[in-house]
Amino acid sequence: MHFELNHKDPATKARAGVLHTDHGAIQTPIFMPVGTVATVKAVHQEELKKDIQAQIILGNTYHLYLRPGTDILEKAGGLHKFNNWDRPILTDSGGFQVFSLAHRRKITEEGATFASHIDGSKHLFSPEGVMDIQRKIGADIIMAFDECTPYPCTYKYAKRSMHLTHRWLKRCWTHFHNTDPIYGYEQALFPIVQGSTYKDLRKQSAETIASYDSVGNAIGGLSVGEPHEDMYEMTDLVCSILPSEKPRYLMGVGTPINILECIALGVDMFDCVMPTRNARHGLLFTSQGTINIKNAKWKDDFSPIDADAPNPTSRTHTKAYLRHLFAAKEILGQQLASIHNLAFYLWLVGEARNQIIAGTFGTWKDQMVKNMNKRL
Amino acid sequence: MHFELNHKDPATKARAGVLHTDHGAIQTPIFMPVGTVATVKAVHQEELKKDIQAQIILGNTYHLYLRPGTDILEKAGGLHKFNNWDRPILTDSGGFQVFSLAHRRKITEEGATFASHIDGSKHLFSPEGVMDIQRKIGADIIMAFDECTPYPCTYKYAKRSMHLTHRWLKRCWTHFHNTDPIYGYEQALFPIVQGSTYKDLRKQSAETIASYDSVGNAIGGLSVGEPHEDMYEMTDLVCSILPSEKPRYLMGVGTPINILECIALGVDMFDCVMPTRNARHGLLFTSQGTINIKNAKWKDDFSPIDADAPNPTSRTHTKAYLRHLFAAKEILGQQLASIHNLAFYLWLVGEARNQIIAGTFGTWKDQMVKNMNKRL
Repeated sequence: MHFELNHKDPATKARAGVLHTDHGAIQTPIFMPVGTVATVKAVHQEELKKDIQAQIILGNTYHLYLRPGTDILEKAGGLHKFNNWDRPILTDSGGFQVFSLAHRRKITEEGATFASHIDGSKHLFSPEGVMDIQRKIGADIIMAFDECTPYPCTYKYAKRSMHLTHRWLKRCWTHFHNTDPIYGYEQALFPIVQGSTYKDLRKQSAETIASYDSVGNAIGGLSVGEPHEDMYEMTDLVCSILPSEKPRYLMGVGTPINILECIALGVDMFDCVMPTRNARHGLLFTSQGTINIKNAKWKDDFSPIDADAPNPTSRTHTKAYLRHLFAAKEILGQQLASIHNLAFYLWLVGEARNQIIAGTFGTWKDQMVKNMNKRL
Repeated sequence: MHFELNHKDPATKARAGVLHTDHGAIQTPIFMPVGTVATVKAVHQEELKKDIQAQIILGNTYHLYLRPGTDILEKAGGLHKFNNWDRPILTDSGGFQVFSLAHRRKITEEGATFASHIDGSKHLFSPEGVMDIQRKIGADIIMAFDECTPYPCTYKYAKRSMHLTHRWLKRCWTHFHNTDPIYGYEQALFPIVQGSTYKDLRKQSAETIASYDSVGNAIGGLSVGEPHEDMYEMTDLVCSILPSEKPRYLMGVGTPINILECIALGVDMFDCVMPTRNARHGLLFTSQGTINIKNAKWKDDFSPIDADAPNPTSRTHTKAYLRHLFAAKEILGQQLASIHNLAFYLWLVGEARNQIIAGTFGTWKDQMVKNMNKRL
């Protein structure tokens, strides 16, 4: 696996590149639809490929470990075979989900013990165990096991947690390099920068992560409730330290505006449940602003869901139809809205890439941010 | 609109034909997926076309009248434009749904008054009103307003109801011919045979319906709880009376076996919610028998959902994957299962057609019925 950095925007720190994997190339900047439990919710794999043009999807180690379980995934020949997706996959480490369990988890030096949200059964995620699990899941890109700190977080906790994440990274790194891929294609381990919203911690963490000879690096612990200014400040700082020749993945971010702003700071990869989760609640993103499709004002608006969209679903179905599907609580409403939002996110990063290559990203980004702040 | 009867099976009463409409030709025998409220539940229109190869879909007048309402449908330019479906559509008359409301409806000579299942609001469906509504919905084939009798039903009630249906038909027919299509393409009105499970009533009703110069004819009031033997006996009797040069539509039928048996009796068109409803509960139909995909026995069965299926979804996704989606209550499970069952129903009627043309329908049908009785 290797990353080609092809273009740098003259006015911002935005970059365009290609990440080559054994399941195909990923053109960056890229957005990765979240396929929590071996499915991008309400979206058929064919739609992911054809309508949405997803290049890589994400799976959640925590969810996949519980269901279907690593034994089933291993018998299937890995997640790609299990969910019939032959393009690249990235799995997170489970750190974020375990952190979300709040009172149902306990963190020690050894790892994190937690109670399943499904049946309350007790489990331990250790750095070594999570590497083994991700070997069995078989994603192309796998993530180090980290502690994702909440926001707000005291300096003392953030510092202690960051050091724990660094010690866990060392164990992940060692175990990863002492084990082989199970399915014959390469897997790359991305380490994760933590440090909450404290500049000195973020700097220290980024320097630690940069010292590893990884294929790519990730920024964690943001988009957890902090002001956007803090997200941007931390991202900018970390990007200035992480090696420029390696892809940078900002985990769990974010709104379309967050994504554009962070592309401008040098981020190459994003994932977020927002496009699919919002879609299931009838909230749509377009290049002209956001739409609450459940609003009665759309009931006789027979214009396309998004006339500017690149994908057939958003251009051929109308707002009135989609509004009707939500009013009637029809599953197809969630399907069409999910396709629309994901296709928009993929268009957004693809167009950002075009603008970077054309050297016009900065002005385009400012205009897009202005548009997307509108509520239609 | 006209029907070409091309082939008759030598051993049974099965027929193969083509029904030509302004939205394209329908090869019979045919199954029509039910798109209750302007959507075939959980199925994207592109999947209906490509994966399922649906030739015609059904809409429910009762549901469409309540939501989105005929004013919206008229503004949209009809149901085809509203739900982005350019192939033929058939709408039922609302009679069956109103009948299902039980204590929330009252039937008089004028029509049926009922309380909406959504907000309890009061409405009247009259023969003339239902013709107007179906003109506005704009389906290619529209149905006469009838009373669908329950099962069991006394002879006295069935007889009185049948006569009411016949009087309503006369009013429908007159009003239909005194009005024009709104959207520039032809609509055909199919009358409906009633008479419960009483042979003399069915005979009388079929003779009445046959006396109309309609493009096609329908058989109603079956698949409402009566034994299959009664369904077949009534269908056989009615088919022997309805004109052979016109398509025969058996409303709301049924299981794959019901469909094959009724094709053998001379029925050309079918609709039923069973493939989609069962799919949403994890019950799959295949040519080898039925599958309850929620059963734990499938958890590590990595064979295709249906290796013999003609459509990509059923061949490329595995039983283990689909079982996992149901276990995790993921929407995609309902989507894939719905696609599978509908693709199977469309394959079944398409293959029946091939066998009729080849003159081998009878033996093929007997073998299929034997297979499909199995539980896998």
